[in-house]
Amino acid sequence: MDERYLIGLDFGTLSVRGVLIDAGSGVAADHHAVPYRHGVMTGSLPDGTPLPTGFALQDAGDYLVAAEEVLTRLGRGRVILAIGLDFTASSPLPAKADGTPLSALMPGEPHAYVKLWKHSAQRYADAINAAGGAFLDDFGGRVSGEWLLAKAAELATEAPAVWAATERFIEAGDWMVLRLTGREARNLGFAAYKAQYSAETGYPRNIVPGLASRLGRPLPAGGLAGRLSEDWRRRTGILGPATVAVAIIDSHAVLPAVGAVEDGTMVGALGTSAAYIFLAERRLALPAGLEGVAHGGSLPDLWLFEAGQAAFGDVLAWFVRTFPRGPDLSASFAAYNAEAATLSPGENHLVGLDWWNGNRVPHADSHLSGLLMGFGLDTTAAGIYRALMEALCYGTRRIIDLASAGGIDTRRVIMTSGLAETNPLLVEIMADVLGREIELPTIAHATATGAAIHGAVAAGVVADFKAGATHFGARSRRHIRPDPDRSARYQPLFSASCELAGLAPVRAAMRSIGPRACGDPDLGE
Amino acid sequence: MDERYLIGLDFGTLSVRGVLIDAGSGVAADHHAVPYRHGVMTGSLPDGTPLPTGFALQDAGDYLVAAEEVLTRLGRGRVILAIGLDFTASSPLPAKADGTPLSALMPGEPHAYVKLWKHSAQRYADAINAAGGAFLDDFGGRVSGEWLLAKAAELATEAPAVWAATERFIEAGDWMVLRLTGREARNLGFAAYKAQYSAETGYPRNIVPGLASRLGRPLPAGGLAGRLSEDWRRRTGILGPATVAVAIIDSHAVLPAVGAVEDGTMVGALGTSAAYIFLAERRLALPAGLEGVAHGGSLPDLWLFEAGQAAFGDVLAWFVRTFPRGPDLSASFAAYNAEAATLSPGENHLVGLDWWNGNRVPHADSHLSGLLMGFGLDTTAAGIYRALMEALCYGTRRIIDLASAGGIDTRRVIMTSGLAETNPLLVEIMADVLGREIELPTIAHATATGAAIHGAVAAGVVADFKAGATHFGARSRRHIRPDPDRSARYQPLFSASCELAGLAPVRAAMRSIGPRACGDPDLGE
Repeated sequence: MDERYLIGLDFGTLSVRGVLIDAGSGVAADHHAVPYRHGVMTGSLPDGTPLPTGFALQDAGDYLVAAEEVLTRLGRGRVILAIGLDFTASSPLPAKADGTPLSALMPGEPHAYVKLWKHSAQRYADAINAAGGAFLDDFGGRVSGEWLLAKAAELATEAPAVWAATERFIEAGDWMVLRLTGREARNLGFAAYKAQYSAETGYPRNIVPGLASRLGRPLPAGGLAGRLSEDWRRRTGILGPATVAVAIIDSHAVLPAVGAVEDGTMVGALGTSAAYIFLAERRLALPAGLEGVAHGGSLPDLWLFEAGQAAFGDVLAWFVRTFPRGPDLSASFAAYNAEAATLSPGENHLVGLDWWNGNRVPHADSHLSGLLMGFGLDTTAAGIYRALMEALCYGTRRIIDLASAGGIDTRRVIMTSGLAETNPLLVEIMADVLGREIELPTIAHATATGAAIHGAVAAGVVADFKAGATHFGARSRRHIRPDPDRSARYQPLFSASCELAGLAPVRAAMRSIGPRACGDPDLGE
Repeated sequence: MDERYLIGLDFGTLSVRGVLIDAGSGVAADHHAVPYRHGVMTGSLPDGTPLPTGFALQDAGDYLVAAEEVLTRLGRGRVILAIGLDFTASSPLPAKADGTPLSALMPGEPHAYVKLWKHSAQRYADAINAAGGAFLDDFGGRVSGEWLLAKAAELATEAPAVWAATERFIEAGDWMVLRLTGREARNLGFAAYKAQYSAETGYPRNIVPGLASRLGRPLPAGGLAGRLSEDWRRRTGILGPATVAVAIIDSHAVLPAVGAVEDGTMVGALGTSAAYIFLAERRLALPAGLEGVAHGGSLPDLWLFEAGQAAFGDVLAWFVRTFPRGPDLSASFAAYNAEAATLSPGENHLVGLDWWNGNRVPHADSHLSGLLMGFGLDTTAAGIYRALMEALCYGTRRIIDLASAGGIDTRRVIMTSGLAETNPLLVEIMADVLGREIELPTIAHATATGAAIHGAVAAGVVADFKAGATHFGARSRRHIRPDPDRSARYQPLFSASCELAGLAPVRAAMRSIGPRACGDPDLGE
């Protein structure tokens, strides 16, 4: 038995997805996914205890059950060189020092469960932001209610007995590593992006009494956490060294899998919303409007700047659901894409702002909203659909331009996920609007593969992430180049959209329309 | 045979519609409509001669044929006290002094035909406006390419031989009166609104060489033109005095029929586009942004201010055609109206600008376009439909507010036509947005009835328009009152729409999207 393998585990919002990779050939050999038993709990706990409005919890025990099934299926009887895992963030939980989640000890207590990334403790974030501090500089002057500090404040304030029993307050990704290895080895990415840790100054002080002692000093990405424990080896049948890397933020795990391991690269994940990561070697102040920056947390020796659009594929799905053109969503998408593809830039005479779910960059304002302008009696449904695509691409370009104005050089644009894979027209428009070549890497299970590469680096299977990307990452990529004529025709339209986006009175008018009732955000993965 | 009658003739864009009214009871006894044989000629003349792009002509002979059929059907063997007629404007034609249209003498010459209101000689208007003159003050500083002066300039410049043969350059309404009576008796309304005539200074001078001698001194509204000629009596079988009034602009004819004959009244005609008339006794400078004002042309002793929205019912029809919800337009309208009626003000979180066909008041800019703002992932199709209705009403309110700011007092709001009759939800929203009671007069054939009242005044059947309105106009009217709560909730939304409408950079961005290809305007009546 010569084969040796890596395993990557991608803990998403609703399930864990695993990939088994042949360490020799670098090729995926198997994959398996298991949903979490209780999914996302927004209405009640497993024992029936009702939850306050706005809560979004998970049961940490579900992660263990799902992970065991995936590891067993992929690893039983195989030599596993390394295991890497990525996780949603910030999804912290209170635990005992040995990793026992408090939810196992207090099953009827909401604050004892994992506060999932989408659970927002906004008023605690508001208080932290109002108090201020230098640690906010790398995050546009504010922390989010979805991040760890606000959730710790919520827990300590609203459930002091739970807080008193909490020995470790830990991201679920770091907790999973603790459970797999028996050792706590936190990741710098979670700490930096979600708990505002800096290598120079540590965690922010005096935010939540007693928080410092419940956190832990983090390790850079690709760091070695330990080896799979005897207990887990017995339960899964995994053989070999089974070195486990520190966990990684799910949205950052994809980077080595798509070859994004160097300065000057931007990676866009075009899902229901869109997330962008800019890689830079040089330290730069966070450009105003971008969302956060940290060093070494997700790739060693690189600054990762974060930005995003609050709705992306969601905007197109909204249109197609609202104005269907076929028996199902897929048929409607096909019909709209086919007709929209026959239009040339400007032919719809529409320009829009893609703020259907508020604006993240640069305004960080959830009360902003979508806008379309240029309607006439000749406007068609497909023209509107194409205008939405164009508005999304204008939004992306504004983010790249903002980064560029702040000194972040973008020489390569890589797009992954969702629409990058399923909607060639969108990618064509994107290339034309950006005036840049777009790389579309071809790789299945990209995120889980990225996690596996973290394992390979930690275990020394490869020398570094660059080698890991080459050996285990995407083997092929398509290059979508802008059409010079179409690209030129988009310039005045993009300028018109920027003019609109820049008008403070338009944003004030949007806010005056009044906030929407609090809806349940999309949980699709 | 005691019955005595009036006849009103409404010459629209595609047909003439006649109504027969019992002079004693004041009630309509019959009606009849006949389309014009050649309709609107945009591609070629009746003999096949192709037309230049942008031409929109009519054959004056068609009016005679249609009028004879209607008058015969309604009047044969009856005692007709008076005939009044209204006509589209500006729709001038070149004729001999006896009324022979030049098109009868030069059937292959485009410039010899009626230049219909929608035919625009814009570059000649631009030249007139560039030269300037005090006569522009009552028309916002500019004449339209659709008005008489520009069309005369086009004719004289592009077809000098036709111009040389032209003895009278005359509105088709005035020409129809000339043909019916054998006497030229022009109406002050056509002269004032479409040829910038003023009682003090006459027609503007030195615009088109030789124009002055081809026009004629006009008479106020309700003036006596003459009696139906022997020739027409023989052809139609009409008996009695058959006094013919001077013609009236079609959009003004409705006023006495709906009881709008006094200071402080606004009448809105909510058709495919919307036209508003404000009546005032006192002389006021034209408020900036309104479209025109003249005295006595359409009702004696009153100043009539004009304004309008370039698209109205067209906007809703566009939406329903673009996103159908039923087997036909009517079913779709019903479905959207039913769902939109369940929404309360602000529930759709949308605000818009109704500029789907450009903006007339106050910007007079056909390159402006429609805008909707406030989209979210929860926006519904019916929410958008209602937002369009609301945007239309915001546009109406902006016009009333503009008039008010200019000193025009509006104490009564009367709405007629199209959506005022067919769309109760729109009228409810209108009352709430305006914060004013809206009167909806109940009268069939309102425009033709108004024309008949002009005949009755000219013939002395009634003492004045007020008496004519009482005896022959609407007998009943519904009063739609605003709901105080809904009305209050519309105020911030209306303010947001005004904020948007007032932003010059938004308008500049709209213009930068680029003008649309020249389409064929809607010819619906």
